[in-house]
Amino acid sequence: MIPGPTPVPETVLKAMGRHPIGHRSGEFQAVVERTNAQLRWLHQTSSDVLVITGSGTAAMEAGIINTLSRGDRVLCGDNGKFGERWVKVARAYGLDVEVIKAEWGQPLDPEAFRRALEADTDKAVKAVILTHSETSTGVINDLETISSHVKAHGVALTIADCVTSLGATNVPMDAWGLDVVASGSQKGYMMPPGLSFVAMSDRAWSAYERSDLPKFYLDLGPYRKTAAKNSNPFTPAVNLYFALDAALEMMQTEGLDSIFARHARHRAAATAAMKAIGLPLFAAEGYGSPAITAVAPDGIDAEQLRKTVKERFDILLAGGQDHLKGQVFRIGHLGFVCDRDVLTAVAAIESVLQSLGLHKGTMGAGLSAASSALNS
Amino acid sequence: MIPGPTPVPETVLKAMGRHPIGHRSGEFQAVVERTNAQLRWLHQTSSDVLVITGSGTAAMEAGIINTLSRGDRVLCGDNGKFGERWVKVARAYGLDVEVIKAEWGQPLDPEAFRRALEADTDKAVKAVILTHSETSTGVINDLETISSHVKAHGVALTIADCVTSLGATNVPMDAWGLDVVASGSQKGYMMPPGLSFVAMSDRAWSAYERSDLPKFYLDLGPYRKTAAKNSNPFTPAVNLYFALDAALEMMQTEGLDSIFARHARHRAAATAAMKAIGLPLFAAEGYGSPAITAVAPDGIDAEQLRKTVKERFDILLAGGQDHLKGQVFRIGHLGFVCDRDVLTAVAAIESVLQSLGLHKGTMGAGLSAASSALNS
Repeated sequence: MIPGPTPVPETVLKAMGRHPIGHRSGEFQAVVERTNAQLRWLHQTSSDVLVITGSGTAAMEAGIINTLSRGDRVLCGDNGKFGERWVKVARAYGLDVEVIKAEWGQPLDPEAFRRALEADTDKAVKAVILTHSETSTGVINDLETISSHVKAHGVALTIADCVTSLGATNVPMDAWGLDVVASGSQKGYMMPPGLSFVAMSDRAWSAYERSDLPKFYLDLGPYRKTAAKNSNPFTPAVNLYFALDAALEMMQTEGLDSIFARHARHRAAATAAMKAIGLPLFAAEGYGSPAITAVAPDGIDAEQLRKTVKERFDILLAGGQDHLKGQVFRIGHLGFVCDRDVLTAVAAIESVLQSLGLHKGTMGAGLSAASSALNS
Repeated sequence: MIPGPTPVPETVLKAMGRHPIGHRSGEFQAVVERTNAQLRWLHQTSSDVLVITGSGTAAMEAGIINTLSRGDRVLCGDNGKFGERWVKVARAYGLDVEVIKAEWGQPLDPEAFRRALEADTDKAVKAVILTHSETSTGVINDLETISSHVKAHGVALTIADCVTSLGATNVPMDAWGLDVVASGSQKGYMMPPGLSFVAMSDRAWSAYERSDLPKFYLDLGPYRKTAAKNSNPFTPAVNLYFALDAALEMMQTEGLDSIFARHARHRAAATAAMKAIGLPLFAAEGYGSPAITAVAPDGIDAEQLRKTVKERFDILLAGGQDHLKGQVFRIGHLGFVCDRDVLTAVAAIESVLQSLGLHKGTMGAGLSAASSALNS
């Protein structure tokens, strides 16, 4: 129950364990052709979705360095660890970064973006870079509204980290006018880590032509060219492609609406349960991520709780990152997670709180609230 | 029988197919600790060997961009497709590249490097970049001698692509004074593609401090810092780490000397067989790679031969790359390859030549020569 690596279905593990085949073979090209089409379906886009062997960070970095040039002015949203990371990437490449901050646990304010973009009358801002679902705090940002403000600006691109939102909630790339969407395999994709994905709009590809930042492995031009021939510019992680193929087929069978409804139901169950047992949520009301619920168990050592849940019930919860360590624990409900998993996690948390003498409410109140949410 | 992805033992495939675990867990740290030690053993070095989720190209690019700065003068060896690639990477980052060329099929001339380095009296050359085993042509370059000339220069670093030499032949990083050694998992490591490795000497780390090329995902500083804590800066390909652990354990059981002897024996068998059936080798005499034997079957369509071997016997040989397509085929004997595999490939090639009416010698001559080489 961590936000990645997430649980992997047996079908996908079996696909992983196949003997690799030549990455230039016809058999492998057929895999690439299928996954290319499935990835467009998942992103709700007619643009190419390119596959990089690397982590989600590699995909985000690729999105930034393929569309921007040295000295370009960008707005970076920062309300958590991943927002901070994109600020660092942008600065590592000499971009002129204006940070739009919100406290950890609070959502980014779309109005702050609107004001900054409206004030930019000479259209110096070339991109707005932000995280959709901020995994470190369990907050979902209003990407749709922020993207609409970027569209009104007319020049800037929207570059979005959708690592823990894609495959968990609606991210209609074309309908929202997103220019770069980055994601990683060990999240909503229900597969192990090692592949990352970056989709680029036509506007992003126009910007690519002007981009002067140096790159080679993460230069998306050759990825696009070879993707058109169902191939890759460098030897890809062939076995992870097998897993991707199997996982995307399972996702298509379930359907986007069912996948999104399942994640929303699990968020509702986890948040209702934590409230019922008196553990405050860390994310601001109404901005809980469909992928992960962060809990700030006021006066309780979150690490002790996590450790005991692992020891007693072999369930791994995520801890707080950086300054939140010990203050926050996080329940991941992303990817291949079913109602039973969420119910079990809630039950284990309640049981451990009871054993530690820290349960603040009626024993079973969390389970009851979770169950009601799952049944409604 | 291609030079990558190479055959993968069942033990390694089974490790791959395990359910992933959290990359920040104690259990995973134990895997990283073991593989870190095993990788030093394989590289015959006391330096850290860092693991990147990506292809061998990512590792080579990392070696270049972590040690050099914009405008730095470098010498690049180029006698094949991969030599060409490192020239492109160096130029993509604005380095001042002097190319030391040899014809495809010929080895790089160590004297050419010596002359260029001796002429550089103001020590402007910051690195010599070259490929040890040039997979595209089946040529092994004399890395040891070239590295000794670099050492005599006193300032330049040796940055070596050892993608198809490491784990196939002796590459004693410390003894040869190599500064950067890059490799990839789908080669001598006997595992699927997706991980790459870069080892850096103390001199390379000193150069890292001065390097001004922009980087983030491939910035080796955070890899080094986290490796010291048996961890990774970004989510690694956890399942490929399981495979790495299993594969390196098998390699340690076999022992470096046995591994190198096996590859040398297979090279001897493949080259003797091709000579015996009158098919000229593409690599210059005495410079055949222990990983791959390239054959230029004068007057025979190499692609037709490859295709027929695949159809009749389900054995995949590699084709010629770029302008060598149709003129060259390549027999990979890298990684998890046994005597039987080499004997079978030779037998299949002879049988297909016979069926096409293209066998130039006595049927069975190749098999006899290969068998003698394997038995001696």
